[in-house]
Amino acid sequence: MLNQLLQKLPQNTDILEATFGLEREGLRLTQEGTLAQTDHPKALGSRSFHPYIQTDFSEQQLELITPISQSTQEARRRLGAIFDVAQRSLEEDQVIWPLSIPPYIEEDQIQIAKLDKAEEVRYREQLAQTYGKKLQSISGIHYNIELGKNLTQNLFALSDQEDLKDFKNAIYMKLARQFLNYQWLVTYLFGASPLAEKDFYPQMPTELVRSLRASRRYGYSNHEELSISFSSLENYVKDMENALATGILSLEKEFYSPVRLRGSKHSRDYLSEGITYLEFRNFDINPFDKLGISQKTLDSFHLFLLSLLWLDDLKDSDQELTKARQINEEVALAHPMSPLPDPELARPVLKAMTELIQHFGLDAYYQDLVADLELAIKEPERTISGHLFGKIANASLAAFGLDQAKTYHQEATQAPYALKGYESMELSTQMLMFDAIQKGLHLDILDENDQFLKIWHGDHVEYVKNGNMTSRDNYVVPLAMANKTVTKKILDQAGFPTPKGQEFASKDQAIRYFNQIADKAIVVKPKSTNFGLGISIFQKPASQADYEKAVEIAFAEDRDILVEEFIAGTEYRFFTLNGKCEAVLLRLPANVVGDGIHTVKELIDLKNQNPLRGLDHRSPLEKIQLGDIEKLMLAQEGYGPDSVLAKGVKVELRRNSNISTGGDSVDMTDEMDPSYKALAAQMADAMGAWVCGVDLIIPDPSQKASLEEPNCHCIELNFNPSMYMHTYCQEGPGQAITPKILQALFPELPIYP
Amino acid sequence: MLNQLLQKLPQNTDILEATFGLEREGLRLTQEGTLAQTDHPKALGSRSFHPYIQTDFSEQQLELITPISQSTQEARRRLGAIFDVAQRSLEEDQVIWPLSIPPYIEEDQIQIAKLDKAEEVRYREQLAQTYGKKLQSISGIHYNIELGKNLTQNLFALSDQEDLKDFKNAIYMKLARQFLNYQWLVTYLFGASPLAEKDFYPQMPTELVRSLRASRRYGYSNHEELSISFSSLENYVKDMENALATGILSLEKEFYSPVRLRGSKHSRDYLSEGITYLEFRNFDINPFDKLGISQKTLDSFHLFLLSLLWLDDLKDSDQELTKARQINEEVALAHPMSPLPDPELARPVLKAMTELIQHFGLDAYYQDLVADLELAIKEPERTISGHLFGKIANASLAAFGLDQAKTYHQEATQAPYALKGYESMELSTQMLMFDAIQKGLHLDILDENDQFLKIWHGDHVEYVKNGNMTSRDNYVVPLAMANKTVTKKILDQAGFPTPKGQEFASKDQAIRYFNQIADKAIVVKPKSTNFGLGISIFQKPASQADYEKAVEIAFAEDRDILVEEFIAGTEYRFFTLNGKCEAVLLRLPANVVGDGIHTVKELIDLKNQNPLRGLDHRSPLEKIQLGDIEKLMLAQEGYGPDSVLAKGVKVELRRNSNISTGGDSVDMTDEMDPSYKALAAQMADAMGAWVCGVDLIIPDPSQKASLEEPNCHCIELNFNPSMYMHTYCQEGPGQAITPKILQALFPELPIYP
Repeated sequence: MLNQLLQKLPQNTDILEATFGLEREGLRLTQEGTLAQTDHPKALGSRSFHPYIQTDFSEQQLELITPISQSTQEARRRLGAIFDVAQRSLEEDQVIWPLSIPPYIEEDQIQIAKLDKAEEVRYREQLAQTYGKKLQSISGIHYNIELGKNLTQNLFALSDQEDLKDFKNAIYMKLARQFLNYQWLVTYLFGASPLAEKDFYPQMPTELVRSLRASRRYGYSNHEELSISFSSLENYVKDMENALATGILSLEKEFYSPVRLRGSKHSRDYLSEGITYLEFRNFDINPFDKLGISQKTLDSFHLFLLSLLWLDDLKDSDQELTKARQINEEVALAHPMSPLPDPELARPVLKAMTELIQHFGLDAYYQDLVADLELAIKEPERTISGHLFGKIANASLAAFGLDQAKTYHQEATQAPYALKGYESMELSTQMLMFDAIQKGLHLDILDENDQFLKIWHGDHVEYVKNGNMTSRDNYVVPLAMANKTVTKKILDQAGFPTPKGQEFASKDQAIRYFNQIADKAIVVKPKSTNFGLGISIFQKPASQADYEKAVEIAFAEDRDILVEEFIAGTEYRFFTLNGKCEAVLLRLPANVVGDGIHTVKELIDLKNQNPLRGLDHRSPLEKIQLGDIEKLMLAQEGYGPDSVLAKGVKVELRRNSNISTGGDSVDMTDEMDPSYKALAAQMADAMGAWVCGVDLIIPDPSQKASLEEPNCHCIELNFNPSMYMHTYCQEGPGQAITPKILQALFPELPIYP
Repeated sequence: MLNQLLQKLPQNTDILEATFGLEREGLRLTQEGTLAQTDHPKALGSRSFHPYIQTDFSEQQLELITPISQSTQEARRRLGAIFDVAQRSLEEDQVIWPLSIPPYIEEDQIQIAKLDKAEEVRYREQLAQTYGKKLQSISGIHYNIELGKNLTQNLFALSDQEDLKDFKNAIYMKLARQFLNYQWLVTYLFGASPLAEKDFYPQMPTELVRSLRASRRYGYSNHEELSISFSSLENYVKDMENALATGILSLEKEFYSPVRLRGSKHSRDYLSEGITYLEFRNFDINPFDKLGISQKTLDSFHLFLLSLLWLDDLKDSDQELTKARQINEEVALAHPMSPLPDPELARPVLKAMTELIQHFGLDAYYQDLVADLELAIKEPERTISGHLFGKIANASLAAFGLDQAKTYHQEATQAPYALKGYESMELSTQMLMFDAIQKGLHLDILDENDQFLKIWHGDHVEYVKNGNMTSRDNYVVPLAMANKTVTKKILDQAGFPTPKGQEFASKDQAIRYFNQIADKAIVVKPKSTNFGLGISIFQKPASQADYEKAVEIAFAEDRDILVEEFIAGTEYRFFTLNGKCEAVLLRLPANVVGDGIHTVKELIDLKNQNPLRGLDHRSPLEKIQLGDIEKLMLAQEGYGPDSVLAKGVKVELRRNSNISTGGDSVDMTDEMDPSYKALAAQMADAMGAWVCGVDLIIPDPSQKASLEEPNCHCIELNFNPSMYMHTYCQEGPGQAITPKILQALFPELPIYP
């Protein structure tokens, strides 16, 4: 009755509509390849609620869990970020083992996961007793899939069923049966556990095999006498309840089937509530892919599942599945380079795939996937285990695995400011997302281009835009900070030092003001333009003529202008949060310092090798350019690109100190006198700002600041101050700001000890 | 020692730098010209804290007080707004008397102001006893001025004084002396109380005079034996303390000098704390100016005061001032058309004015003011009392006064949505400012172009931008509402009805989606563009070809597009505040309804006569145009501008229902079923919005809405919804929103009973 149903769907149906979830396990090892003997990383917060990073059986076995994702790409992207976070949260000498079967380990090195819940610990102790701790340390990947709601609905409409729940149960049971029927093909293609190290099993295959883990003999498997029928959901439930009653299983989750029904804790509930999705547990970790499963594998398997639905159902499933299990055992324990026992058995699936692609007009990518599968069936060296055999035929699997582990680890730590897969987002947002994943806060990107995040824990939801635009600031405060005149009025009224000055709406008024600034250094600028246009700076008192000219220039840009006193001194950025200054930064113009050996050009290249320097704001610092502006500046200082600078001679390549033009950032948080930090925080408080970037000009930082004698001036307040630039600096330790944002948003979570 | 000081100032000194404050009294009358017998208007909130609108001696005598202003223009502008508010807060049949001397009133009609503070009432009862209630009902204008801080500082620097406070005392005392010396000139120029009505005085001048109020005999004056010397601050203090000790004065404020020292309650404190500013109390209300004092008078008097500083000080002030008082009495009680007794006495002041203008290069406006003064000295008919004589020589002053009062009142009520003097600001902001002034909340405009207000009461400060962007909304909520996708996700997750749809980043994906909407009415649109570009609406299911074309058109405008179901029904705007729906509005396209007589063109003209209709968003509704678009639309309906429409036939002139293109607004607050209002408020709550404009499409408003069966869809949320359009509507009662904003911002104030 469910046969031929897919064929009836209109050709433009979104047949790929589904949601996906991935789980990937992995052992923590030392860089020497031994099992890590430390506890679960403290940086990963609390396992009592962490949605993304848990431990499986042992304390050393990380379990990475993606949220439900709308596509395989999205699921893999989420897994990539979680894997990135996990790797960067390990203690320094640790890596994650990239294979299913552990390297050489001893039984007593395996610590049962130190979880809070006593029942969880008890369950693991029992598993250790029944199956042994080593066997429980085998890792794998679980692939969860729920067919799309529209797709299910459309199929249901074409069926003769009357109840959607019953229909879904039928379709998922058919899928499970057909999967079990063709499991050997998956084992053939994706198996990747060819051997175990010494003493892992009491008795081991003498030759390399395709997948120990996928075999009944060496993998996870239940007692021989356990038999759960997939012939119908009713039979499944009956068998399951029987196994529990007789004590063959202690819990339903102890049933180690390569496919699991999901959605309820007790099988019987599927009869009334329906199966929600299926979990496929047959994937060995692919050591050639950083995440253990490639995008192509995800999509090939998805296509494979759909083709199983395209196929007619089994006639006598109990009997056919017994045969299929035997084939799978044979395939799993065959040599990696051996062909399938009967390649023709794969023919129906491949044919179904091709028909399905044609029917629904799937693009060339899917045709290529099928072509790859066909080739792999012909040539075993193209399977993962075949590929792996090529690597270890004359070498150690342990050495290969450790090498891969280190390579992946290095990739993660290479650009520590970026979150893998999300590099196109703003750096500060990437850092905040990293922190949220690390500490186990639920994270959803509501709009990627808009840097709009939803972060939650339990019922407590927070929205965050651009890293620090949150519910904690009230709406009118950033609007006030966006207006220079308003900001100044509020600071002035609160008694804080801002450059004295005046706003003018007429040239006449502005010129009349000259007398009051005739003996002062001043800045004349348009009120609202932000790009430096129309600004004149007089570091020495201006002549009346020059002043009038400056007024004219400013009025050419805006209908209101500001005439302010020029404040001499050094500009520092104070980052304040919730009434406290968390970081102080000094920005310096792009520069190089001579060593008596290298030319300016070479010094620039050397400085640009800093991994923090990149292009187009994708890194915390920008590479120094050697363009016209820099060359002109060099020439004015009496140098050229090929000048060799004497040791210690510092040459500036820009007048402006923007990071975006190659400037240096110097973390001055520890050096800055606390009195200035307190003053900056008070300014933010006076403004009512939760998050604030306070720009102070300080002539002499060795003098203390106070409200009465500030010894500094505030020239700007910023309502969305950059955070990453405080964290990854050219000089100084750097200050992590994003964790403080999260902690302040979720004060109920003691995530930062 | 203070002589010649101004002459030493550099020529480009801002000699006009000063702050100003004005107080204007005015009696409430009925439209029939009798003293109002009602209490102080309830609409004006509580006199216990009102900073702008108080009562003077009697319950019927309004006292309008401006805050300290940076220029005469600003002071007059603030007074204009306060006067506007006061007039529009009166009971319907009342006006404000535009002259100093009351019209015909009887003693027992004058009620002593019903103030909360017992001591205030007691003081007034004592004044009534001493001077009589009628005399206390005379109104005037007080002109407060403090010289600019820079100006004072610069003068101090040029002086031989060592203490700034002593210097300021000296300068203000010189100013007070010289003012008293030339008070007669002010009386001559600006006096405007020529007569009193029957029974006002026991004995009255037989002829019209210049200023009863400015005369010692008829105006406010203390007992004959009171004599306070202005020869020095020390002598002043001594005399004042003596008068209090002997009981000639009960309080210092009972000293009715035309100039008062200000800044401390007790004169002695001036010696230690310094005089802050001077209050000039000599101005009669000018009936020819709506506010009782013209801009030219304010500036002439300012120039006059500066010229008094320019002049040398008096040699023997006590003696000279006695003489000056006699001249003033003579001038005050002279006929309005009589010349000054000795015009030459004015010469030094006029000369000083001219010299000062030349020295500081003041512009032609000030030269013109001096020319006007010179002419007025030559020709008494050019003085205010001379001008007034022209009006009442053959007519009744009472009738003239009442006429002026009604004219001013009509001006105020003509455009009730605007706040006089602030018409260039947004309408909703004008309305909020009106409400703040009316209820006595302190108000400051931090940035006029930016619609940025500071509103406070006691220590409680609120900033408001664009009328309803406040501290009550948290920052991230409006940012979420600014993003269509984010808004939709949040509403969807909370279970509210939004048009179903999907965001696409690729053409391929979007086209694949066709099957799911093949039988639906849809809208295809770019995600972010807001100007209607690239939008295709299919009210009937689209063909695949048309759909693909629409997808292409949308992608031409944005890199992401939305495909949403088209929702049929009528769009309503729900204004929600703080969890409650406060107003519901229906907007209709520009239209006219025939009467069987007029042409379309004439009907438009008639409809445009509604005073609520104006141009360029300066009014709540826009005038309907008869441009190309309207003519085309008419033609499509089979009409032309000269068609006479049959009675009741409604013709639309636009497809869109925007108010800005002449559309109608219909207040539906009372008609709309409460279930929709509740649903809209719940949506705003789900979003976390304090202020929100919820746009619902409702197919059938007669059906009830609920979360389970919404019977409507939300198509947009607005974070800065217009308020004025709910208040002044083409049809329906209209809902006042801005008072609710204020009440919600200041819940501690029971300003709205």
